[in-house]
Amino acid sequence: MKDKLQLMIPGPTPVPESVLLAMARHPIGHRSGEFQAIVKRTTEQLQWLHQTKGNVLVLAGSGTAAMEAGIINVLSKGDRVICGDNGKFGERWVKVAKAYGLDVQVISAEWGQPLDPEAFRAALEADTGKQIKAVIITHSETSTGVLNDLETINRHVKAHGEALIVVDAVTSIGATSVPVDAWGLDVVASGSQKGYMMPPGLGFVAMGERAWKAHEHSDLPKFYLNLGPYRKTAAKDSNPFTPAVNLYFALETALEIMQKEGLEAIFARHSRQQRATQAAMQAIGLPLYAAPGHGSPSITAVAPEGLDAEAVRKVVKNRYDILLAGGQDHLKGKVFRIGHLGFVCDRDILTAVAAIEGALVELGRPPAQPGAGVAAAAAVLQS
Amino acid sequence: MKDKLQLMIPGPTPVPESVLLAMARHPIGHRSGEFQAIVKRTTEQLQWLHQTKGNVLVLAGSGTAAMEAGIINVLSKGDRVICGDNGKFGERWVKVAKAYGLDVQVISAEWGQPLDPEAFRAALEADTGKQIKAVIITHSETSTGVLNDLETINRHVKAHGEALIVVDAVTSIGATSVPVDAWGLDVVASGSQKGYMMPPGLGFVAMGERAWKAHEHSDLPKFYLNLGPYRKTAAKDSNPFTPAVNLYFALETALEIMQKEGLEAIFARHSRQQRATQAAMQAIGLPLYAAPGHGSPSITAVAPEGLDAEAVRKVVKNRYDILLAGGQDHLKGKVFRIGHLGFVCDRDILTAVAAIEGALVELGRPPAQPGAGVAAAAAVLQS
Repeated sequence: MKDKLQLMIPGPTPVPESVLLAMARHPIGHRSGEFQAIVKRTTEQLQWLHQTKGNVLVLAGSGTAAMEAGIINVLSKGDRVICGDNGKFGERWVKVAKAYGLDVQVISAEWGQPLDPEAFRAALEADTGKQIKAVIITHSETSTGVLNDLETINRHVKAHGEALIVVDAVTSIGATSVPVDAWGLDVVASGSQKGYMMPPGLGFVAMGERAWKAHEHSDLPKFYLNLGPYRKTAAKDSNPFTPAVNLYFALETALEIMQKEGLEAIFARHSRQQRATQAAMQAIGLPLYAAPGHGSPSITAVAPEGLDAEAVRKVVKNRYDILLAGGQDHLKGKVFRIGHLGFVCDRDILTAVAAIEGALVELGRPPAQPGAGVAAAAAVLQS
Repeated sequence: MKDKLQLMIPGPTPVPESVLLAMARHPIGHRSGEFQAIVKRTTEQLQWLHQTKGNVLVLAGSGTAAMEAGIINVLSKGDRVICGDNGKFGERWVKVAKAYGLDVQVISAEWGQPLDPEAFRAALEADTGKQIKAVIITHSETSTGVLNDLETINRHVKAHGEALIVVDAVTSIGATSVPVDAWGLDVVASGSQKGYMMPPGLGFVAMGERAWKAHEHSDLPKFYLNLGPYRKTAAKDSNPFTPAVNLYFALETALEIMQKEGLEAIFARHSRQQRATQAAMQAIGLPLYAAPGHGSPSITAVAPEGLDAEAVRKVVKNRYDILLAGGQDHLKGKVFRIGHLGFVCDRDILTAVAAIEGALVELGRPPAQPGAGVAAAAAVLQS
C-alpha cells in the first residue's frame, strides 16, 4: 500500500483536509468584494501570527521570493550589509545580496553551529561611521536544524541604531515566537508551505515603519517584487497583480485553525515535539547534528554515524511511506532531517520514531534497546 | 441564490472540477521521484501547448512575474528596446523596462486600436546600427480586448536580425495559435489563470536558443527570477526553489484535458465563441470596443454608449450571478469585458448574452428586438 504518505520534511508540510478542500473551491474574481473580504481577513490573521500591527504582505511566490523582496526593498546599490551564514539558506541570502551589488560582510559559523551573537555585536560596534545598513539572518536554518539567537542578535542591531534587521523566518514563523513589534524586527519573510499548514506558493513579508522609510530611497531595480504597490493596494484590501486566489482560500482556513489553537499552544506543541524527537534519537544512539541547545523547533537533523543517512531515509520511505528530508549539499548521505513543523500531531512523532527504529533494524544496526526511541519520545510527549 | 458564480472575466477563468480536485490532493515532497515525474510530464505538455521543443519554465508567481523574468533575463542595463503600448499591459511592460534602466522607445496606439506593424517595421529598418536589442509586445491586450498582429510584427523583428522578440501571451496562449518554434519567438510569457483552465499562481516562460544566448551576458540584477537555475534544474525534472506543488497537480490535469481536446479544436472553440459574442453584442446594439477585425479570441470589450458599463455589470452580477470584467483606468464605466477564455462552453456564451439582454431591459434600455442577441450568438455557435 503506497498511497498514505506521511510528510515529515521541513516543507511542504502536511495540510489539514479542510485547508485542501478550501483550496478546491471554484476561484472567484480577485477584484470582487468577496475577495476583498478574504484579503482583509487574512491580513488581520497574518498580523496576529506575526504579532504586529504593521503590514504583512502576500506575494505569489516562494519563500525565496519573499526574502529577496525583503532585501531589495530596503537597500540600495553598494550598501554595506552583514549576512549571517551557517547553512544553505544563509548562503542563499549572501548570493542574493551579491547579485544586487551590495557590499556584503559575511559572519559565518560551521554548519550545525549557531551564529555567534558576539560576532555581530563586535562588527556592529566597530562600525562607528554607521555604514552598515542591514543585518540579514536566517532564524531557523532549515538545512541544519539550527535555531539562531535572533533575539540577542537583534538587540545588538538595535544598539547600532542605524542598521535594519532582515529576517528569514521561513521555518520559524508558526513554530516559535517571532514577535515582530515587541522586538522591533524590520523585515520578516516567510513561506506558506511551512508553519502555515498549507501548500507552497505564497510568500509573506512583514515590513515595519523603519523598513518603509528605507524603501522610500531604495534604488535596487524591481517591479514584481516592489513592495510599494503591495502596501498601497493592501490598504484597499487588494493586490497589485493577480493573487493566487485559491491559495488565499487555503490561507484563510489554515490561519483560522491556527487561531483556534492559539499562539502559545502552537509554540508549546512544536517545542514538545522537538524535545520528544531529540530524546528519541538520543535514546536509540543517533547523534543530533545541531549543537546542543540550539536545535530548531521545526526540524531535527540527525547524523547517523557509520550509517548512510540516505539508506535510512529510503527504508523509512519504502517500507513505512514516511518522507524524511535528506542532507543538502555536502551533508547528503551524512544527515537526515525530521520535519516537525506545522500540522503535526504527537502521534506523528511516535510514528516517525518507530519507523526510524524499524529502519535501523532492517539496516542491521538495531538500537541497543529496541523500542527505546518510542519510549523516550512518549515520555516527553506525556510530560 | 448566490452560490453559483459564473466567471466570465479574463482571469481567473473557470476551472474544471477535476482540476480543482487534483489541486486538493495532499502535497508531496518536491524533491521526490513522484514529483519529478510530474515536472517531466507537465514540461512535455507545456511544450505541446507552446508548439516548441525548447524550454518552457514554470515559476511560482503571476503572469507579471513571468513577463518581467522574460524581459530581465535577456537584456542588460541601458539596452535599447521597443515596447508596444496599446493598453494597460503594454503600459506595464514599459514600466518594467524603465524600472531596470532600459532605453525604451514606445510605439503606441490608442486603446482599442491594434499596434501598427508598419511602425515596428519603420523603427527596425531605421536601426541600421542594430542597437535595438528587443521588441516587447503584448499579443492579446486584456484591457481592451485587442489582438495585436504578432505574426507580422515578429516578421519585421526577424528581418532586423538582431533584436529579440519578447511576447506577453498571457491571454493568447491556449486561445489562439502561438507557434513558438515555427515563428521563432524568443521569449513567450503567460500565466496559469487564463487559457490554462486553472487557478492563478503559476507563471510560464518559454525561452528559445537566441534568448539563452542573450541570457549569458544579461547583467540586470535578479535572483528569484533568474531563469538560468530554472533551466538547469528543469533538465533534471526539478526546480530551483520550492515549487507550488498543488498548482502543479492542477496544471498536469488541466493540460491533460487540453491535450484530449486538441490544439486545433481549442483554437476553433475560442474563435467560435468570440464571433458569437461579437455577433450578439452587435445584434442588441452594443458597440464593440476593439477596432473591427482586431478583437481578441479570449475577451470581448463592449462599450455601451449612453449606459454606465458598471451598471450593466452590476445587474448581470446581482441578478444572474455572472461576473463580467469592468473597464480599467480611464475605461472604468465606459466598457465591460466578457471573458471567453479557457474552460468556457458554448452554453456559457448563450447564458452571458441572455443575462446582458436581461440587464438592458432592467436598466430601461431593452434591445430593439428582445432575444436578438441570443439568436445571433446561437446562429454563430451552430454554424
